[in-house]
Amino acid sequence: MSFHLGEDGQLSAQRGGGGMVSGLLTVASQAELLWVCAALSEADRKAARAAPGGLLELDGRSSIRMLDIPPDTFDRAYNGVANSTLWFIHHMLYDLPGQPRFGAGFIVDWESFRAYNRAFAVALAGACDGQPRPPRAVVQDYHLSLVPRMLAELRPGVKIAHFSHTPWAPPEYYSVLPDAVAREVLEGILGADHAGFLCQRWADAFADCCAAVLGAEVDRGRGQIRYRGHVTGIGVHALGVDAPGLRDRAAKPDVTAQAAELAQRAGGRKLIVRVDRTELSKNILRGLAAYRELLVARPQWQGRVMHLAFAYPSRTDLPVYREYAAAVQELAAQIEAEFATDDWTPLVVQADDDYARSLAGYRVADVLLVNPVRDGMNLVAKEGPIVSDRGCALVLSREAGAAAELGEAALLVNPFDVTATAAALHEALSMSDAERARRSARLAAAGAAVPPARWFADQLAALG
Amino acid sequence: MSFHLGEDGQLSAQRGGGGMVSGLLTVASQAELLWVCAALSEADRKAARAAPGGLLELDGRSSIRMLDIPPDTFDRAYNGVANSTLWFIHHMLYDLPGQPRFGAGFIVDWESFRAYNRAFAVALAGACDGQPRPPRAVVQDYHLSLVPRMLAELRPGVKIAHFSHTPWAPPEYYSVLPDAVAREVLEGILGADHAGFLCQRWADAFADCCAAVLGAEVDRGRGQIRYRGHVTGIGVHALGVDAPGLRDRAAKPDVTAQAAELAQRAGGRKLIVRVDRTELSKNILRGLAAYRELLVARPQWQGRVMHLAFAYPSRTDLPVYREYAAAVQELAAQIEAEFATDDWTPLVVQADDDYARSLAGYRVADVLLVNPVRDGMNLVAKEGPIVSDRGCALVLSREAGAAAELGEAALLVNPFDVTATAAALHEALSMSDAERARRSARLAAAGAAVPPARWFADQLAALG
Repeated sequence: MSFHLGEDGQLSAQRGGGGMVSGLLTVASQAELLWVCAALSEADRKAARAAPGGLLELDGRSSIRMLDIPPDTFDRAYNGVANSTLWFIHHMLYDLPGQPRFGAGFIVDWESFRAYNRAFAVALAGACDGQPRPPRAVVQDYHLSLVPRMLAELRPGVKIAHFSHTPWAPPEYYSVLPDAVAREVLEGILGADHAGFLCQRWADAFADCCAAVLGAEVDRGRGQIRYRGHVTGIGVHALGVDAPGLRDRAAKPDVTAQAAELAQRAGGRKLIVRVDRTELSKNILRGLAAYRELLVARPQWQGRVMHLAFAYPSRTDLPVYREYAAAVQELAAQIEAEFATDDWTPLVVQADDDYARSLAGYRVADVLLVNPVRDGMNLVAKEGPIVSDRGCALVLSREAGAAAELGEAALLVNPFDVTATAAALHEALSMSDAERARRSARLAAAGAAVPPARWFADQLAALG
Repeated sequence: MSFHLGEDGQLSAQRGGGGMVSGLLTVASQAELLWVCAALSEADRKAARAAPGGLLELDGRSSIRMLDIPPDTFDRAYNGVANSTLWFIHHMLYDLPGQPRFGAGFIVDWESFRAYNRAFAVALAGACDGQPRPPRAVVQDYHLSLVPRMLAELRPGVKIAHFSHTPWAPPEYYSVLPDAVAREVLEGILGADHAGFLCQRWADAFADCCAAVLGAEVDRGRGQIRYRGHVTGIGVHALGVDAPGLRDRAAKPDVTAQAAELAQRAGGRKLIVRVDRTELSKNILRGLAAYRELLVARPQWQGRVMHLAFAYPSRTDLPVYREYAAAVQELAAQIEAEFATDDWTPLVVQADDDYARSLAGYRVADVLLVNPVRDGMNLVAKEGPIVSDRGCALVLSREAGAAAELGEAALLVNPFDVTATAAALHEALSMSDAERARRSARLAAAGAAVPPARWFADQLAALG
């Protein structure tokens, strides 16, 4: 949820992107919730200050408390620590010989991260006062990993869940963090009564880190971690798609028109589609390299296939992301130069974000390529088959959390192996219509198994 | 061992660098050994071809068989696979968003790696024929990980040991390798009766990979791995230093002269010394950054300390190594520009390899800095205290295998944490002479605990 200031000085609300926000909004309309979040813009701050009692209306009986965190603190906490450090650790994105270098500047960032987390803990503590029953707090994601312990110390009676939307790093990689930071993040989450993850693999890695770094006692059979006398239950909640809502949206005229346009562009050729932010973890470069190797190793596909790569801007404030985006464009241009003919465009890379066109891409794809080097879940892999018009084959990285649920019906690949990815694309393109439709139906069912409302309710239920 | 062609056409032999070669040479003079190795140069090939019966004389009753492997095969196997792939995997050196990309070229490299390993297996098999007792073969390092299985298939009666001089990657990182390659490397080593590692941590990681990738049965209590009916014993053999030999060498006049020169250069200031190849894993950049942070955070050391960084050339054929070496020079120049005064040179980086000067550096160091991001053992950490004139403090990365033996007497650091490394340098510089001498003596004793001859004999003994 974000706000915009119109020219008339009026605030208007807008929903954010991404699977988590979409999930939470679905839930907010069905329960009595207070949603605590940080103001991201000047308009957000204005809305926060103008709200009566500090509360903005959401849907139904729910409301929002938007925290007015000082911009510098927010920037250091959100960008410096969360997105440039913890994100890189959990996705194993560092070029370790040179990065990260934890120096004096990081200590300032870390203090900001603490302050940012404390602001949330204090707001939640305040909201808990005067509640008739023991209140339940559900803390979302790695930006807020210190909140559970802080809140538990402020209000010992509150029931607290934490949920991690990222992968979790194995101990040998997690230990790259400064020792005190590595401990504090784990101790922060272990302040919760329940710690949730998107798949068993990340839950296991978290437990491994708790054992290796903290010496915590892990009971894998019961799914519990005991640390300093407190027990945290570990749960897997595999966030899925609100299938009816997504299908409704994908059936709207704007999407249908774009789907027709994409189909016309393909001109009867098979379509390989990917939809990603241009995020280092999404592995767009190796995806393009695999498409190139497909065309070289299986020349029968030349002229008979088209690759639509939707690669939307992401974190363009960081040089390493800008360089990555430039490398994507460069490799795309090479492929174009190598293979394009007068009547065949082998590859189209679209960098301008267009949600309706993304849904249109899902609808017309013969093959959906989802090959992240590492991904907490990946909702694209679940959304595509749900709205596919004729069923699509899914080439899926085994390093995505979604592989745990979709693996059987997808074609799983090692995302670092370009040759294997090219072979999987060939297999996907070669699949009979019947086989593809059968697999796609199973993918769609698995992707819709845990819709956001149930996913959230499960976290609440885990608190008793 | 390598050969050089003199101007007169005569071949002369020269010993190689590195702890392993030094260790093997010590052993060769004491037992009846056949040493099989690859020719590395045209002179080596000439020597191999000229040798009577293909055997070159070594010391005592031992001889060398130098394999004449085609240069292109050697290059793909040794550089393409071993040093640019397996080395990067085990040391976790990849910038994973972009590297590695296993494409069609790698498959050719891998075939060469197989051929290279097969040449060793065939040579060993030939050498085993006609031996009175069951022969024992001790295969050294990751370049030859396929040899044990190949040899076992060629000569089922031979007792085989394999030893890994590198770290071993955790399963989540090891699995970056193409699936078939990941399996073949593990299966290759499991062809041995005994698999040796430099410390327990790498042995455990190997066992974890065998369980995760192959589904092999790991018995940690007995230190055994069972796979397809064959049992491989797992052992830790912590290669140490031949202390008498090293002390003799370090007492020679050339070293003594260089030590005097270094001491004069320091002019009574404390000396922090490092001795490394400019290898991505050695972490020279963060070492320099930590020295800089020491001077900023503890300005009392300005003018009172000098850092001698011996950073010798390594793998200059690879762009990423050249860039790394350039970054070292650049950071060094920045530190020089920031701190140097008319009568104080804060930092000297020496890139020209000089063994006598390295030993002199050991002798005069007050603090030895050994901070690799990951290292199988690291013999510098063991050699330094053994030849130190007045005892030295050791700041040691916990990611070096040597930390398992030296950790108690060293100051262990997280090598990614520049601030923590700076703090350890301060602590090391501040140590009393008595404390430093006491710790240095313990380090020297630990570093000499398993000299090369015993290290090698232990591997043989493990074969019964």
